[in-house]
Amino acid sequence: MFENGSRTPLESCGEFGLIDLLTRKIQLKNPSSVCGVGDDAAILDAGQRQVLVSKDLLMEGVHFDLSYVPLKHLGYKAIAVNLSDIAAMNAHPEQVLVGLAVSSRFTVEAIEELYAGMRLCCERYGVDLVGGDTTSSASGMCLSVTVIGYGKPETIVRRNTAGEGDLICVSGNLGAAYTGLLILEREKQVFMKDPKTQPDLDGYDYILERQLKPEPRLDVVDQLKEKGVIPTSMIDISDGLASEVMHLAKDSHKGCCLYEEKLPIDTQTYGTAMELGLVPSTVALNGGEDYELLFTVRQSDYERVKDMKSVHVIGYMTPEIGDYALITNDQKKIALHAQGWDAYLKQEKRNLENDTLATEE
Amino acid sequence: MFENGSRTPLESCGEFGLIDLLTRKIQLKNPSSVCGVGDDAAILDAGQRQVLVSKDLLMEGVHFDLSYVPLKHLGYKAIAVNLSDIAAMNAHPEQVLVGLAVSSRFTVEAIEELYAGMRLCCERYGVDLVGGDTTSSASGMCLSVTVIGYGKPETIVRRNTAGEGDLICVSGNLGAAYTGLLILEREKQVFMKDPKTQPDLDGYDYILERQLKPEPRLDVVDQLKEKGVIPTSMIDISDGLASEVMHLAKDSHKGCCLYEEKLPIDTQTYGTAMELGLVPSTVALNGGEDYELLFTVRQSDYERVKDMKSVHVIGYMTPEIGDYALITNDQKKIALHAQGWDAYLKQEKRNLENDTLATEE
Repeated sequence: MFENGSRTPLESCGEFGLIDLLTRKIQLKNPSSVCGVGDDAAILDAGQRQVLVSKDLLMEGVHFDLSYVPLKHLGYKAIAVNLSDIAAMNAHPEQVLVGLAVSSRFTVEAIEELYAGMRLCCERYGVDLVGGDTTSSASGMCLSVTVIGYGKPETIVRRNTAGEGDLICVSGNLGAAYTGLLILEREKQVFMKDPKTQPDLDGYDYILERQLKPEPRLDVVDQLKEKGVIPTSMIDISDGLASEVMHLAKDSHKGCCLYEEKLPIDTQTYGTAMELGLVPSTVALNGGEDYELLFTVRQSDYERVKDMKSVHVIGYMTPEIGDYALITNDQKKIALHAQGWDAYLKQEKRNLENDTLATEE
Repeated sequence: MFENGSRTPLESCGEFGLIDLLTRKIQLKNPSSVCGVGDDAAILDAGQRQVLVSKDLLMEGVHFDLSYVPLKHLGYKAIAVNLSDIAAMNAHPEQVLVGLAVSSRFTVEAIEELYAGMRLCCERYGVDLVGGDTTSSASGMCLSVTVIGYGKPETIVRRNTAGEGDLICVSGNLGAAYTGLLILEREKQVFMKDPKTQPDLDGYDYILERQLKPEPRLDVVDQLKEKGVIPTSMIDISDGLASEVMHLAKDSHKGCCLYEEKLPIDTQTYGTAMELGLVPSTVALNGGEDYELLFTVRQSDYERVKDMKSVHVIGYMTPEIGDYALITNDQKKIALHAQGWDAYLKQEKRNLENDTLATEE
């Protein structure tokens, strides 16, 4: 049945290409559909408040490896990354629905562990688990989470509204989750060669926690509200800073300029990157899975933003459409490349290439 | 990591048992969470209107077999069964989000076919595709659909509100989708033995269409509105009439009594069941995937309901909690057994057992 007509391999168009291909024929017709495909969450109009809906699909062997991810952590993370999508709209999540497919190799206790992790994250962020679907899988586990949030139309922030000269801000620090993943992968390889060895995870606690138990930055959403700042655009960092800042710039028809020296990198991330022979800035730019918030604010909001706990100004939006630049520590201007997570090209672990920081030709 | 503590195989608790186990610890805290787990859709309060959200996870090898289900049909069905969940709340769907995981064995054209089917169903029912997630899968295809609908609080119908003496009604006819599946399975077996044979599907067009391209009964929702009838409870038939009517009765703390002679069975379904050596009523009671609406109405609504196109009164609710009865054609009262789709017990095709109609002991 797949033999008819042309046969274009999926690898040839990549995740974003495929999404674009599949969604460009979509036209919204219902008045309640305010915004569809193309942001962290869909925006629906239900009357007084706007409703935000987002969903994620996590596949065993692609998004998680149960040989080193405990099920409770997996459950927590599956919820957390979805809450992060609502935070990225400058709004608060209130409900989740969970779809779970598991093969019979899992025990009831294992699934309860997974749910315990999901409940823990829901409780921590005041979110209700209101529904879902549990079914079997021929092989592997599949987790699908839908999250619903609410916000006032005037405070919901999208990706495509950054202005020229707006300051680019990021919360927390970058690259930790990725270096944590590299350590887990390394210890897995050691274990597979000699199952008698114990994993050596001492001294990596922070980056491992960032990988295994990311937190949605709803505290940053609260701080912004407190300071009276409405970002001009916002996205969460799931695919790496470079990829996400280019999303904001592209969708807003702007360029962007980041400063390497401003990239917030935790000392453990820095040390581990060096230990693994990686350039820490490259890890910060392309690591992914940080689930920090990346947003732009008007220059007039600088004073309010600079005192915000764990918010860093790392660059600014430029008028040059398509010009995505990085000013390196030695003051060279180079082109930013996105090496974000592309599930079709990189089913195994991502190989960070150091040429992200290569000088522009 | 799964070695700690007790190890209860998943098969031992079944789908509903597992859902019950996983959801009984859930407490709703947000005022916007009106109703959580346990109905066709969650009910959320967004101000003027209530928002209904439901999701389904469809796994290759469990819910569909791509050797005989064309991708366009699969796409159509994936949307249709979700719209049916909103119809079952006596409401109208307006948006869907689609999560898709596919392995690299699929081509772009194949995925476009799938999306073409999804768009077709969306267009037919005036629903917008507003978001989702596309990712890769280590093996097999996984489709996750979230549907969002809206309704006024006073017209949304739940499962747990049937009253004593209420009439049990069903739309359309029953058992067609299941007999269609049996024919597809039979032809697949023939083909696997001798790939040169052509499938013999002549004379099965109606039941095959019911299996491959089910339609959500939003027309029945419209008719009910037109007639001024608000059902006292409602559910859609995905797992088979017996299982669903027991859901309504159990959740409403009532018993129920159905009449075998009232079960609506299409002539092609009847003939095919006989040809396959099955009792047509058993097929109608347990076949599943009909996606017809099963609902209860007050006796005072009988006159309004009896003239509704394709609605059949098939029984009534009784005060005896836990007493689920069928009056057979020879006027014997037997116990109704649910053999609904239990994905954990029956990963392959369901085996209908004729003892459903065995006399009560």
